[in-house]
Amino acid sequence: MPPLTAREVWPQNKVLKGIPASPGIIIGPAYVLVDSTKIRINHTYLSSLDQVDREVERFRDAVAATRQEIASIKASITDEFQDHGYILDTHLLILQDKLFFEASIDTIRREKINAEWALKQAVKKAQELFSRIADPYIKSRIQDVEDVCERVLRHLSGGGSFNLSSLSEPVIIVARDLSPVDTTQLSVDKVQGFITEIGGKTSHTAIMAQSLEIPAVVGLEKATQEIDSGYTLILDGLNGAVIINPDARILEIYVERKKKFQEFKRDVNSCSFLPAITLDEHQTHVLANIEFQEEVGLAMDYGADGIGLYRTEFLYLRQKRLPSEEELFEDYKTVALMMRPRSVTIRTLDIGGDKFASHLEYAPGINPALGLRAIRFCLKEQQIFRTQLRAILRASVFGKVRLMFPLISGIQEVIAARRILSEIQQELRLEGLAFNPELPVGVMIEVPSAVMLADLLAKEADFFSIGTNDLIQYALAIDRVNKHVAEMYQPLHPAVLRMIKQVTDAAHTEGIPVAVCGEMAGDPLYTPVLLGMGVDELSMNALAIPVVKRIIRHSTMEEFQEFARQALHHQTFEDVNAYVTGVMARRFPEVFMFGRELASMSS
Amino acid sequence: MPPLTAREVWPQNKVLKGIPASPGIIIGPAYVLVDSTKIRINHTYLSSLDQVDREVERFRDAVAATRQEIASIKASITDEFQDHGYILDTHLLILQDKLFFEASIDTIRREKINAEWALKQAVKKAQELFSRIADPYIKSRIQDVEDVCERVLRHLSGGGSFNLSSLSEPVIIVARDLSPVDTTQLSVDKVQGFITEIGGKTSHTAIMAQSLEIPAVVGLEKATQEIDSGYTLILDGLNGAVIINPDARILEIYVERKKKFQEFKRDVNSCSFLPAITLDEHQTHVLANIEFQEEVGLAMDYGADGIGLYRTEFLYLRQKRLPSEEELFEDYKTVALMMRPRSVTIRTLDIGGDKFASHLEYAPGINPALGLRAIRFCLKEQQIFRTQLRAILRASVFGKVRLMFPLISGIQEVIAARRILSEIQQELRLEGLAFNPELPVGVMIEVPSAVMLADLLAKEADFFSIGTNDLIQYALAIDRVNKHVAEMYQPLHPAVLRMIKQVTDAAHTEGIPVAVCGEMAGDPLYTPVLLGMGVDELSMNALAIPVVKRIIRHSTMEEFQEFARQALHHQTFEDVNAYVTGVMARRFPEVFMFGRELASMSS
Repeated sequence: MPPLTAREVWPQNKVLKGIPASPGIIIGPAYVLVDSTKIRINHTYLSSLDQVDREVERFRDAVAATRQEIASIKASITDEFQDHGYILDTHLLILQDKLFFEASIDTIRREKINAEWALKQAVKKAQELFSRIADPYIKSRIQDVEDVCERVLRHLSGGGSFNLSSLSEPVIIVARDLSPVDTTQLSVDKVQGFITEIGGKTSHTAIMAQSLEIPAVVGLEKATQEIDSGYTLILDGLNGAVIINPDARILEIYVERKKKFQEFKRDVNSCSFLPAITLDEHQTHVLANIEFQEEVGLAMDYGADGIGLYRTEFLYLRQKRLPSEEELFEDYKTVALMMRPRSVTIRTLDIGGDKFASHLEYAPGINPALGLRAIRFCLKEQQIFRTQLRAILRASVFGKVRLMFPLISGIQEVIAARRILSEIQQELRLEGLAFNPELPVGVMIEVPSAVMLADLLAKEADFFSIGTNDLIQYALAIDRVNKHVAEMYQPLHPAVLRMIKQVTDAAHTEGIPVAVCGEMAGDPLYTPVLLGMGVDELSMNALAIPVVKRIIRHSTMEEFQEFARQALHHQTFEDVNAYVTGVMARRFPEVFMFGRELASMSS
Repeated sequence: MPPLTAREVWPQNKVLKGIPASPGIIIGPAYVLVDSTKIRINHTYLSSLDQVDREVERFRDAVAATRQEIASIKASITDEFQDHGYILDTHLLILQDKLFFEASIDTIRREKINAEWALKQAVKKAQELFSRIADPYIKSRIQDVEDVCERVLRHLSGGGSFNLSSLSEPVIIVARDLSPVDTTQLSVDKVQGFITEIGGKTSHTAIMAQSLEIPAVVGLEKATQEIDSGYTLILDGLNGAVIINPDARILEIYVERKKKFQEFKRDVNSCSFLPAITLDEHQTHVLANIEFQEEVGLAMDYGADGIGLYRTEFLYLRQKRLPSEEELFEDYKTVALMMRPRSVTIRTLDIGGDKFASHLEYAPGINPALGLRAIRFCLKEQQIFRTQLRAILRASVFGKVRLMFPLISGIQEVIAARRILSEIQQELRLEGLAFNPELPVGVMIEVPSAVMLADLLAKEADFFSIGTNDLIQYALAIDRVNKHVAEMYQPLHPAVLRMIKQVTDAAHTEGIPVAVCGEMAGDPLYTPVLLGMGVDELSMNALAIPVVKRIIRHSTMEEFQEFARQALHHQTFEDVNAYVTGVMARRFPEVFMFGRELASMSS
């Protein structure tokens, strides 16, 4: 057998690919967090009732210790993370969740089994439950559950938690997963980047890394096996590549790429606070999509002209009970005040009946995307809807608030929803509570039937907002989460372009504006086509705002219109794509340098 | 405590509601099939290897006995059922299915457990597998598996099967479920109707009862508990009602209703063999949808002008291996010959990748309706597609065969599919095999994007066929199988009508005809609106043909056109529905007497 070569023991230039989660390029030493307290969970039968009682006690102690631990972490978090402390509240709530804790105690007693095994069963049940959820954001929340349970397991086995604060030099952290709690213990000075084996674009690691402006790659399978502490890494948070022990030639390439990206950022950021006006003085608006109040800061940092889509599901999902009107009001009011005088468009609840406590009894169905969701759910469960509308109306006097209804399929739904809104205005008047009686009410166009009826809907709405994610999905009958058909999910499909055109034409005939707030809006490749078809506002991931604004400020509307006219002439996706890509590569090469990568960071 | 009254021990006028499965009204005595050999399955551990070996042997014997039993039933089936003997082949194949039988033997050995329990586990796994399937037809095929396994279980416990041939007087059979095998043992002389607790519109009981012209109600929960043998029953196969021990007044009402239905049938059947021509001599076509070769007889009996939709999935689903070109060719050829000179429109394979043997590795996905299905699957798995196209082309010389591609979303798919078709024509030419080089090629319009691109698709197709079931589902983002939203599945939604109008207009501009083959086509409520919007052909459940033809033959096209124009003016589903229902009730009261009920018998 030949002796091992250096290359075999010390891999060089090995490229791994993960999911880009936070932009930027960094070169530095790896620091691998090996979960040394990793517990091998055995299945142990308890032979006496006495043993069972002691096991339950041991489990309760571990939960109490975990609660204590999280609370003390929360008390000690550093300034950069202060805004994210709320994440730990979710963890404290999970500790009280019957699904895990009472269920585990039941299992210990019923099956006369050790606490670790019982808890593992509870986690498995939760994983199964979450795995059936279509929405990638909600799905990824299983991590919170896993993190809390892992922490309890560590206490059960007597181990403590990681201590990341002990790092002494700036490193790239490599871990199976970073829990929000782990992340809050990090010192930004010492961490240059993150690589995790699990997690997706909407994982906590991604959100944290973005707001800290630290590059990150997630979902990189086997990272902790392939990488050892001390290896030199290139982490490319723009395309998800990680290169292990690069040679001089590759280092040179990446040093150059890093420089280019910094120039690019400087360049595009230079106009991010200027208005989105074309060279021929056509005013457009570039806004941010947010999910949490805490993201408002990021939106403002990147020059958002407002919030074009405030998703309001989080407050309903982070706890088992429904949020109160006061909780919602305070949240909406805070966002409205922070953004003032810029607009904040609040989308009413867009989740399925199956996401709520079981007393509502809505089973998820075989095709949840075609089930009881959004406005349909709200019109059935009017009490939930009314509470949200009251909160939005009350918040409307604290800023420039707009309201929009998701998943509208015909005018009867808009009429029904507006009728409820009027009733609530009347209620508030009687109660002497202030609200903006002129609150603009928008209709989201994301169901194909709404496109067909856009002329009628335009008479019932103050504005349209096209949700391209759902619209494309239904228009092409493609679930983009399904990997077997994901490639057929095509924003430049001629049918999609015709739909957007039909909607903008119908809206403008009635004199109302049209926004686009799906992922398509933030991808700079589509900016000229969308604006050229008459879209008035684009709302996107904040990171993409500067690039999109730059394109707008360096073009004329006339050019966009001609571009859109040509794009609409092509008959297949392949032809449209070739045309749009070709023109954009010549006209706006920056789109292909880093622009699309920034746009794809989150949805 | 008061003494029991007669009513309490002998229920009178009690109304039960199930799913109408085969039309007609019958009054007669109940005969309840109580499953006396019902096996209580216990969980027994086997303590020695020797016991395990004997258990496996016992299981093998039971399977062999079951095979023998089915074969002898098959050999003895009566003339009326000869056409349906093929169903028993499926059962013989299930007996060889690894999923059940090898898996059961494995379980016996691995878990040292009794055969009944092991088999029950295999059935549970299959039930779980089938429950995740969206398509109601495929889903209901779990009954075949359950039936075969029940039969094996009976042999394991030493019992034999029912013997229905021993009945001596004409009765209404009441059973938890009737397996195809049970049904084939029935003598039509002695059975007037069927009532089962389980089963849906596409269950074997429904298909059998329809082709025997025996009224049936299925899915009537607790029927065997509520009904005793000897009770007098009214079975209304039109609306699914079953009335237990009716009094004189109710009997009178139903005797009258029965008479009316017979008059109605006579009346509508009188013109079922005449052409579907309007009073102002506008020629339309009324065709049948079929799923099995065996349904051709029924289609001809009801006066079908052709087969407008031949679903071709059955040959792929009834066995684990793929059907050979010869098997497919023979099947298509037989149907073409039987229908000659009338047309037969064969739809290429419309199932998902997850329905095939596991080596293809297509997981079902969270939203199967938006997954890898139909033409998408065929363009990925071209060998399967090519085999089917060869068979269709070769069959095309034996009758008036047409071909259509399902789930088309844009012209690139049509171009790709037609390219493959040309290649195969070239192959056949080289091999000296005959085919019709002018074989008409149609595009199914059932994805919203296809509606948007109908003008382009019309240039690539010889005809359109609108699949309203899927089109409505995607257009409104409603899964009609989901009970929480089923009421929102509305064929008269203004967006749906506009879509159909847009498609017919685009087709006629290019001079190609438009068919509708979804459930909407067979419901006589919609006949005038569809034809008035320009639809040229309607294809439906054979039972609905006479009513639809009657409406056509008693109206003018001018009247239909005016009707459609008015319907298109209304802006909400509620308004369209009120208008259409109002006009139809005045103009065609027969639609509301029995017409819609006939239409809803199957899809």
